[in-house]
Amino acid sequence: MVYPGSFKKLIEVLCRFPGVGPKTAQRLAFYLLGLAREDVVAIARAMVEAKDKLGYCAVCGSLAEMESCSYCSDPGRDQATLCIVQEARDVLVLERTGQYRGLYHVLHGALSPLDGIGPEELKLDRLEKRIAEKVISEVIIATNPNVEGDATAGYLARLLKPHSVRVTRIAFGLPVGGDIEYADDLTLSRALDGRREM
Amino acid sequence: MVYPGSFKKLIEVLCRFPGVGPKTAQRLAFYLLGLAREDVVAIARAMVEAKDKLGYCAVCGSLAEMESCSYCSDPGRDQATLCIVQEARDVLVLERTGQYRGLYHVLHGALSPLDGIGPEELKLDRLEKRIAEKVISEVIIATNPNVEGDATAGYLARLLKPHSVRVTRIAFGLPVGGDIEYADDLTLSRALDGRREM
Repeated sequence: MVYPGSFKKLIEVLCRFPGVGPKTAQRLAFYLLGLAREDVVAIARAMVEAKDKLGYCAVCGSLAEMESCSYCSDPGRDQATLCIVQEARDVLVLERTGQYRGLYHVLHGALSPLDGIGPEELKLDRLEKRIAEKVISEVIIATNPNVEGDATAGYLARLLKPHSVRVTRIAFGLPVGGDIEYADDLTLSRALDGRREM
Repeated sequence: MVYPGSFKKLIEVLCRFPGVGPKTAQRLAFYLLGLAREDVVAIARAMVEAKDKLGYCAVCGSLAEMESCSYCSDPGRDQATLCIVQEARDVLVLERTGQYRGLYHVLHGALSPLDGIGPEELKLDRLEKRIAEKVISEVIIATNPNVEGDATAGYLARLLKPHSVRVTRIAFGLPVGGDIEYADDLTLSRALDGRREM
């Protein structure tokens, strides 16, 4: 097929996006061609600008435009509660609930011996130091409910026990609005384990 | 939720893409942040470059980097056959089959009185002129198999009849690899209409 050179190149770069195959890339490319030039430039600029400005908070590892993120530098947040998540995007998801008002710690990964990711790669010594230095009363572990997330949560619980801090993990169970009939066995069994007085 | 400014802006522009909602946009944004700066710049540059270089062929309306597209300027193509399509992307789809070796004519739309798109908006006079000037023996209509596409095909057939040119429309029927059981009524009835001796 004879694609014009710059079109072929555009398709190629769009294909690199996660979840974008050749067909979606072509649709996105035609969408871009249909825009005014200034709009295409605005999109291009927003990408490079975000890449240039954004980094990770030196303290907690969440997405930040400055050295310190908006969570760490907010005195109104509960300084005694720390929520540990795997990725910076998980912070945004938790923030969306509007329920959590404590601090964060982003691991940027999970323990995975097969991928060569151990406690050192996750810089858990920095986390320990942070907990030792600050007056943290509760650590909430919010790693993913899968093998790596479970292993990481278990490791963290053992690691943090000597620091006389309350260590909890977010609950597993039926998703709200879900139907017991369609729940998978593992979720249902975790929901039973986690049952509460009412 | 407190999003860093440049991240919020990136999400906003990515959300404008067709089929991209806030969640996908966030995933794409984090993917971009994970790339090296030069890769982000390369993506941004490919977008603007494609927008700057690409236009539509002055003759047939397909995607082109120069005044004349690679189809119109290829003397090896069958100059006596013209395929009429709705959009420039349809040309790429037909080219992918590798079966068609004639010329194209892109309408950039279909007749749709409700949207105010009539024969003038599709510049059908230019198409008529093209057919009158060139020695075209067959016009293949490849508009979409829906109300607008059908209306356009019917209009074109009437319009081109006086030009003593063979006017055909691509076939409708069961998709290859499909299952009769799952075919919708309309497709099946069209497939029956279009049955051929074997």
